Amino acid sequence: MDQATLVEYIAREVLAHLNPLSGGAWAVERQALAAKGVPVAVSVRHIHLAQPEIDILFGPGYALHKQRDLYQPGEFAAEEVVTLVGPRLRSLSNVRVLGPVRKRTQVEISRTDAITLGLKVPVRPSGQLKGAATLTLVGPRGSITLPECCIVANRHIHISTVQARTWGLRDDQRVSVSVRSERPAVLGDVQIRVADTFKLVMHIDTDDANAVGLTCGSTVEITDGE
Amino acid sequence: MDQATLVEYIAREVLAHLNPLSGGAWAVERQALAAKGVPVAVSVRHIHLAQPEIDILFGPGYALHKQRDLYQPGEFAAEEVVTLVGPRLRSLSNVRVLGPVRKRTQVEISRTDAITLGLKVPVRPSGQLKGAATLTLVGPRGSITLPECCIVANRHIHISTVQARTWGLRDDQRVSVSVRSERPAVLGDVQIRVADTFKLVMHIDTDDANAVGLTCGSTVEITDGE
Repeated sequence: MDQATLVEYIAREVLAHLNPLSGGAWAVERQALAAKGVPVAVSVRHIHLAQPEIDILFGPGYALHKQRDLYQPGEFAAEEVVTLVGPRLRSLSNVRVLGPVRKRTQVEISRTDAITLGLKVPVRPSGQLKGAATLTLVGPRGSITLPECCIVANRHIHISTVQARTWGLRDDQRVSVSVRSERPAVLGDVQIRVADTFKLVMHIDTDDANAVGLTCGSTVEITDGE
Repeated sequence: MDQATLVEYIAREVLAHLNPLSGGAWAVERQALAAKGVPVAVSVRHIHLAQPEIDILFGPGYALHKQRDLYQPGEFAAEEVVTLVGPRLRSLSNVRVLGPVRKRTQVEISRTDAITLGLKVPVRPSGQLKGAATLTLVGPRGSITLPECCIVANRHIHISTVQARTWGLRDDQRVSVSVRSERPAVLGDVQIRVADTFKLVMHIDTDDANAVGLTCGSTVEITDGE
């Protein structure tokens, strides 16, 4: 390998680790070489309910009513809403219930919401509720103070098995994504979630969305894996 | 220059553009080589007032009362607060007035606040009010609907002339900063603001703070200039 070729080789290897925010010609080239664009969906505060909590909040044997389908197959926004009340008795009303019914009740709020409620809430992947915050849920037929139910959802990307293979990504991998906007950023620690039926989308909460100027339908780009 | 020296040189040059989020040994080395740590202050929504607006909101010739000094010399939080009302008549109450009196009234809110008010607000450096949003300000003695007064403040770092020189930064330069937290990120388009009397601090709004898990007293690091 002659010197020029070696330098070229090193430059390209390094390119693979470069961040677009660093600017300059290399970043542009990196974009062109490997654009992994992902559409964004902004998750507003919501709640997934298990049947025992549905029974308490809406009445025994109550069934959720579908309002509209969500992007991921089988998921839907229900007509039902609940009110969340924190330990200092501050509340958030009209929090949407998402279906279908789950095995365990899980509330997902933003850190801004957590501050409103006067609550310390850990950042967690969906389903990891050990150490999650306690919250009082209020429905039209009853209320319950539920331990370990409330998290700030981590940033994550849903991707199909086929697409993940194409892009060289694996389930539960952490990547960074680049956001081009009025307030650009690279968001780190984004969890990859792979399933055969998943449609490609990045879920971020309203804090991330508002901080970096993203709305539903914006596109971000996976810039590196970790 | 022999080949090994050349490769070393290239690697170091590239290092200067590398982002810590990319991970790996180089990122760690980059940290060790040039840590430019900056303390963070989170700016909650607030308003700077000019005397004509003080006269309308609080009464002719009214003078602000200092509640407490802020970090930058001469700046203070006043005892006075106002209510902001947007075009859809939604409001935010208890918005703190910051002193001293300015030549022009300027309201700084987060994008989350803008959504609450039902308002489209541009991201701007302080003082650049052309195209800023119109907002109604309400005080105890009067109210005014003020055109071009409301912005989402850009991310910016206050730094003294001496410190800026040490770190090779110039006024109005844009840099990126790296945030290590539960939700790590690299925030781009951060404006450098240099003055002899400035004390080192990065000002971010509540959206950025809550998105990436920063509070007052957290430290971020300048990772590259643009």
